Amino acid sequence: MVYVGDFLSVDDLLFRPVHSLIDQSLHSRLGVETTNGDGFGIGWYGEGTIPAVFKDTDPAWNNPNLREIARQIRTPLLFAHIRASTGTPVQRSNCHPFRHGRWLWMHNGAIARFAELKRDLMLVVDASLYPEIEGSTDSEALFYLALTYGLTEDPPGAVARAVGLVEDLGRRHGIPHPVQMTVATTDGESLWIFRYSSERHTRSLYYSTDVVQLRELYPELEVLRELGDATRFVVSEPLRDLQGLWNEVPESSWGVIGPGRQEIRPLSPLPPG
Amino acid sequence: MVYVGDFLSVDDLLFRPVHSLIDQSLHSRLGVETTNGDGFGIGWYGEGTIPAVFKDTDPAWNNPNLREIARQIRTPLLFAHIRASTGTPVQRSNCHPFRHGRWLWMHNGAIARFAELKRDLMLVVDASLYPEIEGSTDSEALFYLALTYGLTEDPPGAVARAVGLVEDLGRRHGIPHPVQMTVATTDGESLWIFRYSSERHTRSLYYSTDVVQLRELYPELEVLRELGDATRFVVSEPLRDLQGLWNEVPESSWGVIGPGRQEIRPLSPLPPG
Amino acid sequence: MVYVGDFLSVDDLLFRPVHSLIDQSLHSRLGVETTNGDGFGIGWYGEGTIPAVFKDTDPAWNNPNLREIARQIRTPLLFAHIRASTGTPVQRSNCHPFRHGRWLWMHNGAIARFAELKRDLMLVVDASLYPEIEGSTDSEALFYLALTYGLTEDPPGAVARAVGLVEDLGRRHGIPHPVQMTVATTDGESLWIFRYSSERHTRSLYYSTDVVQLRELYPELEVLRELGDATRFVVSEPLRDLQGLWNEVPESSWGVIGPGRQEIRPLSPLPPG
Amino acid sequence: MVYVGDFLSVDDLLFRPVHSLIDQSLHSRLGVETTNGDGFGIGWYGEGTIPAVFKDTDPAWNNPNLREIARQIRTPLLFAHIRASTGTPVQRSNCHPFRHGRWLWMHNGAIARFAELKRDLMLVVDASLYPEIEGSTDSEALFYLALTYGLTEDPPGAVARAVGLVEDLGRRHGIPHPVQMTVATTDGESLWIFRYSSERHTRSLYYSTDVVQLRELYPELEVLRELGDATRFVVSEPLRDLQGLWNEVPESSWGVIGPGRQEIRPLSPLPPG
Repeated sequence: MVYVGDFLSVDDLLFRPVHSLIDQSLHSRLGVETTNGDGFGIGWYGEGTIPAVFKDTDPAWNNPNLREIARQIRTPLLFAHIRASTGTPVQRSNCHPFRHGRWLWMHNGAIARFAELKRDLMLVVDASLYPEIEGSTDSEALFYLALTYGLTEDPPGAVARAVGLVEDLGRRHGIPHPVQMTVATTDGESLWIFRYSSERHTRSLYYSTDVVQLRELYPELEVLRELGDATRFVVSEPLRDLQGLWNEVPESSWGVIGPGRQEIRPLSPLPPG
Repeated sequence: MVYVGDFLSVDDLLFRPVHSLIDQSLHSRLGVETTNGDGFGIGWYGEGTIPAVFKDTDPAWNNPNLREIARQIRTPLLFAHIRASTGTPVQRSNCHPFRHGRWLWMHNGAIARFAELKRDLMLVVDASLYPEIEGSTDSEALFYLALTYGLTEDPPGAVARAVGLVEDLGRRHGIPHPVQMTVATTDGESLWIFRYSSERHTRSLYYSTDVVQLRELYPELEVLRELGDATRFVVSEPLRDLQGLWNEVPESSWGVIGPGRQEIRPLSPLPPG
Repeated sequence: MVYVGDFLSVDDLLFRPVHSLIDQSLHSRLGVETTNGDGFGIGWYGEGTIPAVFKDTDPAWNNPNLREIARQIRTPLLFAHIRASTGTPVQRSNCHPFRHGRWLWMHNGAIARFAELKRDLMLVVDASLYPEIEGSTDSEALFYLALTYGLTEDPPGAVARAVGLVEDLGRRHGIPHPVQMTVATTDGESLWIFRYSSERHTRSLYYSTDVVQLRELYPELEVLRELGDATRFVVSEPLRDLQGLWNEVPESSWGVIGPGRQEIRPLSPLPPG
Repeated sequence: MVYVGDFLSVDDLLFRPVHSLIDQSLHSRLGVETTNGDGFGIGWYGEGTIPAVFKDTDPAWNNPNLREIARQIRTPLLFAHIRASTGTPVQRSNCHPFRHGRWLWMHNGAIARFAELKRDLMLVVDASLYPEIEGSTDSEALFYLALTYGLTEDPPGAVARAVGLVEDLGRRHGIPHPVQMTVATTDGESLWIFRYSSERHTRSLYYSTDVVQLRELYPELEVLRELGDATRFVVSEPLRDLQGLWNEVPESSWGVIGPGRQEIRPLSPLPPG
């Protein structure tokens, strides 16, 4: 889940009123009815220029510190992630979001047969970035590949090249569908989102409609009045059936979502030169 | 889950061939498809007179040490439990099975409004036993009440008195259905099981049929040939539809299940005084 | 460690400039050179009326989340504690500070032979408070005894009665020196500290001198200029030899330390009526 | 600590009688007086051909499961390790011993400026071994380099080449003393030990004298009678002053220690190609 907008309490976003808007998606992830119990993490912008991250290996619903922290922190930009491991160990260094300088990154999906491809992918990571890699996941590898390819300058281009590399390498290994991913990344100001899979059958990703429009649609919804005009949410699975609230990110796309900005474009992987 | 029988590897019991017999119940508890992620525990009889316990607070499926240990341990009597907290903290001291001397105890269910009743229940625990209480759960409280009432001499009588006390106290607090429980307890030789709830609508509990009879029913089932004649399993929810394998413990009953022994009797709570 | 004063970053207090003032005591506790590795906790006043607590069971120096959180939080009142277990389990519910409503409490020391006395002490805890007890330590027991005796109205009187009870009970059990304690407690506005042991040989406790005076003593010390006039610290073991900085709390005393207030009085245990 | 000999209980080795022999070294590592609180691990040979490992991230003295397991396991070959992190995260995948097939490996020391060298070292690891790397430490990197260079065929030669590689690479990075290490490794039958550092000033490593000889020296020492003739221990810091018990592994050496075998030879790093 991603929130961008005015300063809001993390508690409101994860556990309280605002949560009712995003609840089906988030609830199914933070709540006891889920099995995504392989660690969790939040990242946010607050004091200082570097975003903070709070990550742990227990199921989010078992972490009393998360509730404590959530009540104390207000932020205009929150990343929240619940991990379902695809094989790599359950350890804090494998929890999302990942951070590099001012950047946060989180990923749902997988690189197919990652163990087999990992060595070759790691070789591509820029030598100056390599020492920052802390964990062992495909998600973090994708992040550092994108950073290597210029994420901080041109996010869509860098991700297109990272995806292209994985697909190219994967196919040389006889892997039919190397990439499955939804990604959110930010430098603290803009929010980029990506939805792509080699098989063109990607897990879902949604962004919320402009709040000003939503208020016209649902004048009675009090929670909408509590939200600033520039508010946006991005979620994986909005089950709540509030007509007009959620917009699916199209297959094979990237987007920029932010205050006064909403742009969705096709994503075409760039194979390595 | 309880196993009694010949010496068997814990790995076989929790993760391998034998597991296919009990898989629906146990798999749904150890597997990723469950949400019982609030800690787990196993207890077994091996070296020494005191049973060993291995308990931790992460979901069982995330604990690599459990897999390691399971391959190294053989036992004729295994208790395995996956915890779904009913409110008390997720900490090792709240994980089942609980141990007192040679005894193990595990419980599914709850004492209704336990926080409200706890103080009065604790007062009843024998002063010599009280210091052994390590955690904060209703399950451990029930164990120490039963011990106070003579569990080691007369398990059915002691549990009947413990239940009677909780019901009496609960009703004085206006609690309609104070007790909901299935319990398994053992001294390392006999296995006692209990199924009871104040509302006479108790969660399920099953014990397996005598293996000699099962082999006649299913001569083709190889796993049955690997099991000793005296083998018994007790599980909460056998979903596998192997006709004749599982016998439901009747409502409001206790039983002794063991080598050459299978006795089921009604359980009538004994009110205090 | 306790800090009261202007809003300051927890990072400054635990890891940065201000820390140089308190470093010997705190550093020896947060740093790798200590063995107090049985969990840690911080409590502070921020958003809302209830203080927040962040506690975990690993050594403080191994907790990356503590560093993250510290940089994001500013507070005028911080409690920080590193636990060295005296026998009770290493679990979050046993970590300090303990909280009740607006109150925080932390304790160094022990009730001698607590396992033996625990049951009788628990009986004294008010029935309405009893359900809030989460852990199993002597420190939390002392807190709830003090609350039972009116901590929120008259802290010195309530602690005197709690200590008197433990001493009376302990002596009836033939325990020569039942109580050993330094305690800090607060309602978010005033800070009470206590130093007492039955043998009149209590572990140390110190409070810092008024900052205005300190600045006159050490005009060159830059860190003193960063601190507000009302700043106070309380620490267990100030090893830094800055003449005039630290004042020992006398044996068998209580005190109130706060903005414009510094009062130290004798503490006389009140035996139960 | 390494033990080779007859089947012995891990409890005896880590916590009981036999422990008195090795206590100064091990005690200072398992005991509360140490600060090596960044995780621990044991590895042993038991059921099956693959050794078992039990590793966790808390301080060993805080892990109740370790005590439980220790009482249940008997082994003729035990590796025990307490980790003091040199910077990499405290997570199970970074705890020793590391395992590859039948092999165990543990290391004390460090590769200097490992973050800087890591990428180039990883490139050398054989592509078929690379996917097995689970953690992020220099110690595991050394293990996989040695495996790449033929550890399973010629341990001294493989370690000499691994060390030679690190030294060569380190010097090209201007690192004066790239390697500091004591290592123990085994295939379950023989035990190889290594002591080496680039600066020829390596942390200590000791092996115990043949038990038959020790019994002649100390006929009154009961614990020696409990040990089989082939018993050997390897420890880092034997503080106990039992004349003739411990033999220092010389600077820049490797050795094979085992039943009927004790061979110490010089170790000369082999630079790459």
